[in-house]
Amino acid sequence: MEHDLLGDREVPASAYYGVHTLRACENFPITGITIAVYPDLIRALAQIKKAAAEANRQLGLLDGRRCEAIAAACDELVEGKLHEQFVVDVIQGGAGTSTNMNANEVIANRALELLGHGRGEYAYLHPNEHVNMGQSTNDVYPTALKLATYAGIFRLVDAMAYLRQAFERKAEEFADVLKMGRTQLQDAVPMTLGQEFSTYAVMLGEDEGRLREAALLIREINLGATAIGTGINAHPEYAALACHLLAEISGVPVVTAPNLIEATQDCGAFVQLSGVLKRVAVKLSKVCNDLRLLSSGPRAGLGEINLPARQAGSSIMPGKVNPVIPEVMNQIAFEVIGNDLTVSFAAEAGQLQLNAFEPVIAHSLFKSVLHLTNGCRVLADHCVDGITANRDLLRASVERSIGIVTALNPYIGYAHATEVAADAFRSGRGVAEVVLERGLMSAEALAEVLRPEVLTRPQPIPARA
Amino acid sequence: MEHDLLGDREVPASAYYGVHTLRACENFPITGITIAVYPDLIRALAQIKKAAAEANRQLGLLDGRRCEAIAAACDELVEGKLHEQFVVDVIQGGAGTSTNMNANEVIANRALELLGHGRGEYAYLHPNEHVNMGQSTNDVYPTALKLATYAGIFRLVDAMAYLRQAFERKAEEFADVLKMGRTQLQDAVPMTLGQEFSTYAVMLGEDEGRLREAALLIREINLGATAIGTGINAHPEYAALACHLLAEISGVPVVTAPNLIEATQDCGAFVQLSGVLKRVAVKLSKVCNDLRLLSSGPRAGLGEINLPARQAGSSIMPGKVNPVIPEVMNQIAFEVIGNDLTVSFAAEAGQLQLNAFEPVIAHSLFKSVLHLTNGCRVLADHCVDGITANRDLLRASVERSIGIVTALNPYIGYAHATEVAADAFRSGRGVAEVVLERGLMSAEALAEVLRPEVLTRPQPIPARA
Amino acid sequence: MEHDLLGDREVPASAYYGVHTLRACENFPITGITIAVYPDLIRALAQIKKAAAEANRQLGLLDGRRCEAIAAACDELVEGKLHEQFVVDVIQGGAGTSTNMNANEVIANRALELLGHGRGEYAYLHPNEHVNMGQSTNDVYPTALKLATYAGIFRLVDAMAYLRQAFERKAEEFADVLKMGRTQLQDAVPMTLGQEFSTYAVMLGEDEGRLREAALLIREINLGATAIGTGINAHPEYAALACHLLAEISGVPVVTAPNLIEATQDCGAFVQLSGVLKRVAVKLSKVCNDLRLLSSGPRAGLGEINLPARQAGSSIMPGKVNPVIPEVMNQIAFEVIGNDLTVSFAAEAGQLQLNAFEPVIAHSLFKSVLHLTNGCRVLADHCVDGITANRDLLRASVERSIGIVTALNPYIGYAHATEVAADAFRSGRGVAEVVLERGLMSAEALAEVLRPEVLTRPQPIPARA
Amino acid sequence: MEHDLLGDREVPASAYYGVHTLRACENFPITGITIAVYPDLIRALAQIKKAAAEANRQLGLLDGRRCEAIAAACDELVEGKLHEQFVVDVIQGGAGTSTNMNANEVIANRALELLGHGRGEYAYLHPNEHVNMGQSTNDVYPTALKLATYAGIFRLVDAMAYLRQAFERKAEEFADVLKMGRTQLQDAVPMTLGQEFSTYAVMLGEDEGRLREAALLIREINLGATAIGTGINAHPEYAALACHLLAEISGVPVVTAPNLIEATQDCGAFVQLSGVLKRVAVKLSKVCNDLRLLSSGPRAGLGEINLPARQAGSSIMPGKVNPVIPEVMNQIAFEVIGNDLTVSFAAEAGQLQLNAFEPVIAHSLFKSVLHLTNGCRVLADHCVDGITANRDLLRASVERSIGIVTALNPYIGYAHATEVAADAFRSGRGVAEVVLERGLMSAEALAEVLRPEVLTRPQPIPARA
Repeated sequence: MEHDLLGDREVPASAYYGVHTLRACENFPITGITIAVYPDLIRALAQIKKAAAEANRQLGLLDGRRCEAIAAACDELVEGKLHEQFVVDVIQGGAGTSTNMNANEVIANRALELLGHGRGEYAYLHPNEHVNMGQSTNDVYPTALKLATYAGIFRLVDAMAYLRQAFERKAEEFADVLKMGRTQLQDAVPMTLGQEFSTYAVMLGEDEGRLREAALLIREINLGATAIGTGINAHPEYAALACHLLAEISGVPVVTAPNLIEATQDCGAFVQLSGVLKRVAVKLSKVCNDLRLLSSGPRAGLGEINLPARQAGSSIMPGKVNPVIPEVMNQIAFEVIGNDLTVSFAAEAGQLQLNAFEPVIAHSLFKSVLHLTNGCRVLADHCVDGITANRDLLRASVERSIGIVTALNPYIGYAHATEVAADAFRSGRGVAEVVLERGLMSAEALAEVLRPEVLTRPQPIPARA
Repeated sequence: MEHDLLGDREVPASAYYGVHTLRACENFPITGITIAVYPDLIRALAQIKKAAAEANRQLGLLDGRRCEAIAAACDELVEGKLHEQFVVDVIQGGAGTSTNMNANEVIANRALELLGHGRGEYAYLHPNEHVNMGQSTNDVYPTALKLATYAGIFRLVDAMAYLRQAFERKAEEFADVLKMGRTQLQDAVPMTLGQEFSTYAVMLGEDEGRLREAALLIREINLGATAIGTGINAHPEYAALACHLLAEISGVPVVTAPNLIEATQDCGAFVQLSGVLKRVAVKLSKVCNDLRLLSSGPRAGLGEINLPARQAGSSIMPGKVNPVIPEVMNQIAFEVIGNDLTVSFAAEAGQLQLNAFEPVIAHSLFKSVLHLTNGCRVLADHCVDGITANRDLLRASVERSIGIVTALNPYIGYAHATEVAADAFRSGRGVAEVVLERGLMSAEALAEVLRPEVLTRPQPIPARA
Repeated sequence: MEHDLLGDREVPASAYYGVHTLRACENFPITGITIAVYPDLIRALAQIKKAAAEANRQLGLLDGRRCEAIAAACDELVEGKLHEQFVVDVIQGGAGTSTNMNANEVIANRALELLGHGRGEYAYLHPNEHVNMGQSTNDVYPTALKLATYAGIFRLVDAMAYLRQAFERKAEEFADVLKMGRTQLQDAVPMTLGQEFSTYAVMLGEDEGRLREAALLIREINLGATAIGTGINAHPEYAALACHLLAEISGVPVVTAPNLIEATQDCGAFVQLSGVLKRVAVKLSKVCNDLRLLSSGPRAGLGEINLPARQAGSSIMPGKVNPVIPEVMNQIAFEVIGNDLTVSFAAEAGQLQLNAFEPVIAHSLFKSVLHLTNGCRVLADHCVDGITANRDLLRASVERSIGIVTALNPYIGYAHATEVAADAFRSGRGVAEVVLERGLMSAEALAEVLRPEVLTRPQPIPARA
Repeated sequence: MEHDLLGDREVPASAYYGVHTLRACENFPITGITIAVYPDLIRALAQIKKAAAEANRQLGLLDGRRCEAIAAACDELVEGKLHEQFVVDVIQGGAGTSTNMNANEVIANRALELLGHGRGEYAYLHPNEHVNMGQSTNDVYPTALKLATYAGIFRLVDAMAYLRQAFERKAEEFADVLKMGRTQLQDAVPMTLGQEFSTYAVMLGEDEGRLREAALLIREINLGATAIGTGINAHPEYAALACHLLAEISGVPVVTAPNLIEATQDCGAFVQLSGVLKRVAVKLSKVCNDLRLLSSGPRAGLGEINLPARQAGSSIMPGKVNPVIPEVMNQIAFEVIGNDLTVSFAAEAGQLQLNAFEPVIAHSLFKSVLHLTNGCRVLADHCVDGITANRDLLRASVERSIGIVTALNPYIGYAHATEVAADAFRSGRGVAEVVLERGLMSAEALAEVLRPEVLTRPQPIPARA
């Protein structure tokens, strides 16, 4: 039996959470998914509560015994215990208050046990008075989101690097495989398959850099801002001290925002991160579109590369194998782009001194980061690593290509080149065949120009007459 | 131990699913959420498999004993049994093949048991040969999505009607409460609070109509299309027969699409439904924005209405109560709008004879429908039903309003009205006071004009001089 | 020299607009594009002003002479005169007031001239008192948007029908061209190129239907609602009368919304229309993606069809021709999808009794409708009409396809079919060759099964042993 | 009369453009808006053509006379001449080829005149052979977009700084104006109006920083990549030399991308910039929402601040003044967010070695940058600069607030504070009045605690008993 502003309520005996959490569960039966699915968030809350308790102790506002009990309870959460007690819905009203109170109650009750008291004996240690001392949801919750996101970002960066390296290995393996490059889906000029795969690696490398930059913004926190950023009810030294302790406890180099009122209402860092995640998604989707296109076939497609078979295709079509791994990454990308829009809407809807819609921002970002991370590893392990090239077909496609005529411009002149192209197109023959037939170049000279290392990089241009 | 195109694999002894499902689990460890969270989808798959089996039996292609075993297994799924055996991820590659195969395998193994065989003894009844007979993922899966969505749409329509009725009751309760209407957040002219609440009811009623229209499109299925819509390997009578049986079994008035090739590749019905869900979300968000604005305060806000207190607000601010229920609906709306974008991207990415990205379309639509449904009921029960009006404040705000002068235009003329408005604004007094002071109207005449039933509807306009 | 609430201002002597328009020009120097680019909007405003004047005359509120002058000025605008006098920016604050006042001023000044007075002699005929009589921006502006949009929708429907017919002609032309259908970009089973093109026609036909439905919603207007929908200052018979006259004058079957307060604040019809435009865009983009894919080449692509050459491609690559027409349609689609998001944001931001953001909704919708209309006609004339098929290549691709084996399932059994598929894949040979070599079917029987009309539709299935 | 791949065409005698441009005009009659509306783009193209000509001259590939004529023609374009000759549509297929050819033709024809030849006498100086020498649309066009965008970004940064300074002046002016802060639209704790306005300045300052970062990415160009990034037909020294010259000519510190193949196909820098523009839009929209909310009234709103009157409001409602300037900024923001989605779609749609959809990316970015720039200046000049505060009302709202009780927590204890809050809420009285009546604090002590400088920042907390 617990009591709050609205009256008395029975709480299950087995529960570590209390009446605030209970009411939140009743108020928000939306998705059926609880915040326990985001262990990073629970760990972050525990680290903040521990840092706050220690800061309050150092400022003489919390006694050592309570502080230690709170810290011990927080350590258990960090280790992964009691996460099932975090039962509020991932989509919730109240600007995160229910998440914060869920943490306050679980920590208080576990700390009470550690102190030898029964759960609910809040006279000895109170969720609000002690666990939440000097804090407000409005500084704790965004700080927790940032800590949790920070951890996720770097797991994603690692997964992207893992995928990048898979592409780099393939770029090396295919370094000598000549093929036709395409612009606007039309044959253009030759390149190597290695060059093609290296672009995917370069793209990923750049995005790793952008994510690291976004992480720099994310580590700016407003702990100590309390209700609206003015720091009301907080000790003048609390913000700096709590931030320092939190950095120590969490290992994340958090810094206090220069303007706490702005930092309390602003979601700019989340919008920026979400925008970068969208950028990552857009590019990974483009890469997967390319992989699916290049591996189309086996007979009536481009058939340039083979993706490893991962599962049987259609029951009705014997032997069909589909590019299921790129397809799942495309869908992750589409989800991430949708999540970014949710973040934009929620951020825009903030009013005056607070954005009440951070829970759905958090939910969206957590999903995007997790799914992209999983997707990158799956794409590396189950697809890129096993890609093989149809070298003969690729070489032949260059030889029979008309686009190759571009490379001959400096040697036979634009006018001859145009005639050769037209003849080849009409007759269905290869450019080389036509050039040799017309005696425009010797077989040796032609072979020299058509070497991959000549075709696929800038060359000194012969002086035109 | 089971076998497929890629070789042999061990399947857990307790599992009803088989090797295809197992490979899908390995291939798609993305969200950690399985399709078991969508019971409508599993029921829909079971109803389709039952309809197909029966159609095949009637066409002489499946014997009665197998047909009955399949049907019995499907009935169990419809009753809610074995849903935990649907273990593939909600985000998956393969255009839904893994979901279809998960269903084929669970149904086959359960039917085998019912026939007295062991699980995996596919020689007696095969997931592909018998359960999937005459079918392809490419017709089964979209048909299942449509059946499942159809059920969800009408639950949402019911929830919206439930919320609409809550607004209608309030519209009646507040029918005589005069207040200032506002345009561009600036005071405009009087209306009743009942009129204001009735608009929310009307909006919802219109959207119920739009959803019913979207449901009409959704019930058009491509069962019998097989691989790409040409109906290859299907009996010429199969499509019509299976559709007829499915309508009977499911109670959903499904019809066969006029062009099965188009129906197999097209996601138009999903895009349309998603667009209508976005419309619903946009409007519900607007309504919740209004509720939060009208209840702002308690002292420094508009304070026109009171939302019922649902949970304690801030630990740091004693007595604070926040509009947590509208806030959660706003966030649902933002999520739905994001989901709509995901659907748009996925639909646009379809290529040639199939859209491979239907799984993420389904995931997005299922979430949107479910969360909106839950949100409407929560909003009705936990918020709208308990709203009260601050009648005195509202009446006073009309009396001290300058906007009320508009109503006097026809009686005192535009020129006098402008002077009165300017005087009232400068002096901070009420329009009525100024009018009486200037002797422009008698107290009785003024009282007559300021009656709610006169102020808040069209009136015969006195002839101007 | 004119006067308003804020003081005196000089208006250019040549101008038909007045001080309100002038201030709007100063306030909104945003895009540099004036509303004159939307003649439908100006015509709609003129038709509304004429209908209102006539209604007021019939109700005895406006004398015949002024009414006739206003009507004559409006007729000139409908004929396309004086549109250059509509100088306010397409993106403007004030919920459309500046657009409405621009119309009031131009009409008043032109009517004054027709009455023999000088421009600006408002004592004789006033922009607000007479031209805007019984009206408010809040009912005139949305009504004008709906009239203007209605006209645009049907031009778009016509353009879509025009494009649909181009696809239908091609579907007929290619009715006998056998090709491989593809799912997930992998070879699936045969179909005809005519079937493929007919799906595009069917898609367009469905979307024409959806647009017609959206037009039904758009014709519901709130004229007579005045400021917030309560009809304050309007005669009880005005709304019905003005609506009736407007239908007569404009030829658009407008109806009065059942609840004018709801209709004044609600943007549902615009959101719905925008959603349908997005649906159209998503599908047209998919169609253009397909056209670009099918025409990829000329040597290293699918090369199934040829798009007509419309302009020289690259200066650097002799003879290159690119699919520029589908590409422009893709980009129109991307713009329309973005516009839809703008509409969603603007609609969600409406507050209380009005949505102040209708100008950007209008701008977005007008652009989407116009660009889609132009795009459909360009796509039909400059691309679809000139498409040719590479019939030999297509036929060959079916013959060498492995996917064709699916069609043999009922004749040689699944086990033999699988062996044939594997042999064909390994050896690089055609399925037919392998089947004949193995003596599984006679050449005659095989030829029979491989006839297009057999391969591309459901067939009676031979009884399995 | 000019000739190209497709045959002969007449070009208007007055035109400086040629047959390629003419065909583009026929192919893309989409928006009716020509690229001449983007002078930055035309200037950028001219600077690139000049740099390329000079590089080719230095490499011995172009003679000095032609080089000088080209350079002179380019200089004229930079000065703003002949922009009306840029007549291709802003939305166009062909990956920018038509824009590039429009530039090549205008420059060639103007250079021919300068050389004393007639327009069209391409034997003396050819649009492709000489003006486009060593270039491809695929390197020229993205480079031009980046140069043009770079210029726009810094104009936007300037406009944002201009707006930021307006907010900073107001923050100073209102530094001593006490008011109630609000979270979730409910009264929270006191702050100063100066603090509130300073957050807007801080937000803008941060976004200026983000834009500068995005500009760093934008200056990375692929000039010298030619067709697909392999540099085919380009001299090995050309890329570095042309980039160096371009930096010199344009004054923009462009650098050559490390991987030209990646740089040719990747739109990451545009996606990133668009994401940052969306961030700016989201925040500016939030700020404008706040301004409209705080100035709501004049009688039935919050009425905390007054926005300067910019134009008369409603004709029907005498004296009404609306927040038209924030409203136009909201709409710009909604447009920018929609544009960002267009950019995302277009970027995702890139295939293999090129993104063919850069024209719509450019169109979207140019609009976003321009409209935001105009919007910031309008918001500063026409709104923020003239904002005044209703100081008495604000002070009174703090005094009668219940939220103020939070500040007394450390002095009278949480239990007493709760009783005071409840009493104040029930009785409608102020907290101070209740505290004094109950003798909980002396008038002097209370006055001390309620000083703005005490209420609105962290304070040493008295030791609790």
